[in-house]
Amino acid sequence: MAADCVFSAVPFTRVALDDPFWAPRQAVNREVTLPTEYEQCRKTGRIDAFKLAWKPGMPNEPHIFWDSDVGKWIEAAAYSLKTHPDRKLERLVDDVVALVAGAQQPDGYLNTHFTVVEPEKRWANLAEWHELYCAGHLMEGAVAYFEATGKRALLDVMRRYADHIGQVFGRGPGQKRGYCGHEEIELALVKLYRATGERRYLDLAKYFIDERGTEPPYFVAEAEALKRKGWRKYGWGGGEYSVFQAHKPVREQDEVVGHAVRAMYLYCGMADVARETGDATLLPPLRKLWAHVTRKRMYVTGGIGSSRHNEGFTFDYDLPNETAYCETCASVGLVFWAHRMLQLTGRGEYADVMERALYNGVLSGVSLDGRRFFYANPLAAYPAAGKGAAENVAAERREWFGCACCPPNIARLIASVGQYVCSESDDAAAVHLYAQGDVELHVAGRRAGLRMTTRYPWDGAVRMRLTPERPTAFTLALRIPGWCAKFALSVNGKAVRAAARGGYARIRRRWQAGDTVKLVLAMPVLQAEANPRVRMDCGRVALQRGPLVYCLEQADNGRELRDITIPPASAFKPVFRKNLLGGVAVLRARAWRRSPRDWAGDDQALYRTTPSARVRVSVTAVPYCVWGNRAPGREMLVWLSRRQ
Amino acid sequence: MAADCVFSAVPFTRVALDDPFWAPRQAVNREVTLPTEYEQCRKTGRIDAFKLAWKPGMPNEPHIFWDSDVGKWIEAAAYSLKTHPDRKLERLVDDVVALVAGAQQPDGYLNTHFTVVEPEKRWANLAEWHELYCAGHLMEGAVAYFEATGKRALLDVMRRYADHIGQVFGRGPGQKRGYCGHEEIELALVKLYRATGERRYLDLAKYFIDERGTEPPYFVAEAEALKRKGWRKYGWGGGEYSVFQAHKPVREQDEVVGHAVRAMYLYCGMADVARETGDATLLPPLRKLWAHVTRKRMYVTGGIGSSRHNEGFTFDYDLPNETAYCETCASVGLVFWAHRMLQLTGRGEYADVMERALYNGVLSGVSLDGRRFFYANPLAAYPAAGKGAAENVAAERREWFGCACCPPNIARLIASVGQYVCSESDDAAAVHLYAQGDVELHVAGRRAGLRMTTRYPWDGAVRMRLTPERPTAFTLALRIPGWCAKFALSVNGKAVRAAARGGYARIRRRWQAGDTVKLVLAMPVLQAEANPRVRMDCGRVALQRGPLVYCLEQADNGRELRDITIPPASAFKPVFRKNLLGGVAVLRARAWRRSPRDWAGDDQALYRTTPSARVRVSVTAVPYCVWGNRAPGREMLVWLSRRQ
Repeated sequence: MAADCVFSAVPFTRVALDDPFWAPRQAVNREVTLPTEYEQCRKTGRIDAFKLAWKPGMPNEPHIFWDSDVGKWIEAAAYSLKTHPDRKLERLVDDVVALVAGAQQPDGYLNTHFTVVEPEKRWANLAEWHELYCAGHLMEGAVAYFEATGKRALLDVMRRYADHIGQVFGRGPGQKRGYCGHEEIELALVKLYRATGERRYLDLAKYFIDERGTEPPYFVAEAEALKRKGWRKYGWGGGEYSVFQAHKPVREQDEVVGHAVRAMYLYCGMADVARETGDATLLPPLRKLWAHVTRKRMYVTGGIGSSRHNEGFTFDYDLPNETAYCETCASVGLVFWAHRMLQLTGRGEYADVMERALYNGVLSGVSLDGRRFFYANPLAAYPAAGKGAAENVAAERREWFGCACCPPNIARLIASVGQYVCSESDDAAAVHLYAQGDVELHVAGRRAGLRMTTRYPWDGAVRMRLTPERPTAFTLALRIPGWCAKFALSVNGKAVRAAARGGYARIRRRWQAGDTVKLVLAMPVLQAEANPRVRMDCGRVALQRGPLVYCLEQADNGRELRDITIPPASAFKPVFRKNLLGGVAVLRARAWRRSPRDWAGDDQALYRTTPSARVRVSVTAVPYCVWGNRAPGREMLVWLSRRQ
Repeated sequence: MAADCVFSAVPFTRVALDDPFWAPRQAVNREVTLPTEYEQCRKTGRIDAFKLAWKPGMPNEPHIFWDSDVGKWIEAAAYSLKTHPDRKLERLVDDVVALVAGAQQPDGYLNTHFTVVEPEKRWANLAEWHELYCAGHLMEGAVAYFEATGKRALLDVMRRYADHIGQVFGRGPGQKRGYCGHEEIELALVKLYRATGERRYLDLAKYFIDERGTEPPYFVAEAEALKRKGWRKYGWGGGEYSVFQAHKPVREQDEVVGHAVRAMYLYCGMADVARETGDATLLPPLRKLWAHVTRKRMYVTGGIGSSRHNEGFTFDYDLPNETAYCETCASVGLVFWAHRMLQLTGRGEYADVMERALYNGVLSGVSLDGRRFFYANPLAAYPAAGKGAAENVAAERREWFGCACCPPNIARLIASVGQYVCSESDDAAAVHLYAQGDVELHVAGRRAGLRMTTRYPWDGAVRMRLTPERPTAFTLALRIPGWCAKFALSVNGKAVRAAARGGYARIRRRWQAGDTVKLVLAMPVLQAEANPRVRMDCGRVALQRGPLVYCLEQADNGRELRDITIPPASAFKPVFRKNLLGGVAVLRARAWRRSPRDWAGDDQALYRTTPSARVRVSVTAVPYCVWGNRAPGREMLVWLSRRQ
């Protein structure tokens, strides 16, 4: 482990949540989403693809992305099995694993599309054809399933594949000096290294990281070779290597560019390699990239990637709301990256963004019933504008997608969400996210139970009861979120004065079983302003309370939400509504809108120069993460006009 | 002439403007724009195309649109020659006419592309290949040149072509029952009818109008025939006939849809046929279409067509500002249509829109120096967002375009702008637009001079001196614009009380030479609100004074214009600045913006929940029609945040 690692995450296997926010979502994920996604994979041919029985002319031609969907589903299922054993599910995974294993070629290669559809094109188009990306997701699934069940079958398959990849790629004679157009293999190889202890997988991950963006550009030669063969197949026309974050060596990169999901996975891989190799040269670019995305290119929901056209970043402060892409996978990737940076640095700024993305831009990606998914997570919905939109930018969640990366991505995140709650080190434990449940900490060489009791995110009071095996001295670092301006802390009923430094209030003492810490985070309604350069949000604010960003929905507030003018934050009152949207605190206030009577009727002029009257209206805001769960395909709005 | 015709426009040949607003623009149009456009046509091969010398492999392959550009340039040059004879220009036109004439085929057919490039495809794709559109523009040029010079050469050529078209198209045996995908031929044939008195041209125009959108759809059979031959060439894939306004018979159309320019030209043709044939069944759809576009689909600038994707209409109240297409040609077409409706009805609502489009969305299409043109006229410009945009949506005016419809369109409009000033009938004269100059009215069987003295649009005072040949009784109808809430009227110094009915104040008397009418239109600064369903403009207003819509430019107000919050209209003061942008009244006020200091620095957070401070700033608004004439490629904004 590199010298500057501050923390290790407490794995989700040692975090059992029984809170009203995450526990029901985990149950739905387990009981509905996982079976639903398996069924979708089966129905669409993704499972059977591994039988390698497809022949030209048959339906369900294995697509170049498909293997990755199955890999992610296996990973999600594995996480669930680890905390909630389920024989039926395990048998299902075993069956899939057998199919996957059967698809492996004698040389270790494993890819359904390039085995049965275009075998002659193996490794011919790393820029666009996603082979290493698919390999990475199968590796992640293999590691997760091994760790969940101890079963080595898939792990061994993926080791053989990784060994094959290690033979094909590298700087040795006869090897390809390439890397994947869609990053993922890097972080997956680090997981494989951690699971097996085989250093060569870490070295291979480092090779892919180091090689990226070097001269001469691999993709140029590749594109030329493709052209000679007449094999250009997908959209990338060459030239803009920034799409793949391959425009310069990763250590020289300081701006997040291109495809958002690819960027996130790359940065995760960089952080992993930095951590495992101790390569400190990867940290400065990671810090610069972090500052860039969070200060110039991130939505208030933790969504990233402004444009559907490149599924990625555009230019600084360009954060359109109605056409925001904010792919669910990109926010998932941001959580992954933030989590890694948090372990490396212990700084609250990473936890703040992790929480922002998790509670808002990620969770909005799945319906409360666990059956439907958003690919894009816009910050405003206007039904007429969405008519005829592509499935990945539809204004309603859908059951599945042709390119189905998002549904299993959110499933694996929810199944393992416990790992984001706490971290531990030799002499400290940190609580990053507050959620009711039991955590088993390993700190200062001992086990220590931590029971959290809280209604977070609906309430900022958290009671923590510690039960170390025996009295143990360590620092308990409690995150004071960036949104929290005031907090109170007590130990065993006695107020403790602790400043929040780097986002954490720290209490160092010899903890005894039964010690109780109480933290109360003030959780007023806030109104976020965006930087004036975010031209779309000028004159507007986003309602926020605790980690949750709120929105107005048509169901509560009628049409033409943009015409509503809200009062200052202090006028809003949170009201918990048990029967609404699974139980949420809504925010209510009296507001204004232009008198609909002044503008009623089809013969009304489009423009008028006499100021129209205003009427008082009640507004109700709901958490963004649950929008679109009532009447889908209606208006929604995050950035609200504020009385000035 | 149909029974319900109220007015005839006073032709531009009887209107000599010497005002500070239009006269300089006409001079620049004559002295700079016309020669520049000729040179562009020549340079790009549009002129030489008529030599029919192009062979495969040669540069400058005649494009299917090209003939129309030359036709419009001839028309613009003709209007200029009529009022400002210019031997050099006339010789130039004569040379072009000779080339055009030489390109006519023995059977009368005349189209450069389908003579030399794809002769086998003549009339094969009316939906997309623009032959009748090109024919129409050459006809308009021919009529204008004949009327300007008395020279018949081009008129005769185009008559022969029209006769050929009349043989090819129609309901007789062996004829094609088609119509053009890009309307234009209809209104052109009416002009040809008026110039020649040949009824068959009017009948052919009526045929094209009547046939449009009938069952079975012509374009379906055409598309099938194309497919059989493998000839599909351009973008339209079949199905959406609304692109061409061919989704139903024109008399059943009540919503403006599809390509905006095509729609305008069709409605012009419908109005012309209604007027000349007395076909009253065309008027109800025209009125419905008018109500629809002006009440639901028109920008405050008179721009129309929200989307670059279809160059046309999207859905009701969908009027995005930064991505507004608002093609210059579409606003030109709206002026044409409004002008025709105004003659048919005498109602001020048509003049209001005509004025709105003319002074704003049309004029913005050309630079003050007459050398550069906008194809799209957005209502907001943000440089970073426009980077890499296509030439037709660039944030700076350009010298020319591959598809160069707009530059000669605006040139022909400016050269003939006098025709929009007044109308006349047997017993009335109407003044629609106020501009300093001399008009020769023909009213009640006599000539009457009308001298207008005014600084309009900078000032609302207009002095009108009448000089009838001899004392004559008629009604003088003076337009009271929709934007004007208060006016004062006097005749020979004596106040006259006249209500504005239907947009006009009417004075009936026996006019004598030297009678003087004074009209003072109150011209305060106004703030237009858009209907709340225009979601982009909620919380925002557009500054307007007289007929001019104003905008903020970066040159006067710095960056991030959307963050400026303006005070009510009454706080704005007009200030005439002689040396600015050719002499304009700017609007000035004290306003607010968020303190840049609160947000300075690259390390500034993207979001903050403590309200940022506001600072006072001075704002200066300039007329929209002159934006982008100083430092091009900078920010501009029409809809401004208003303090609420």
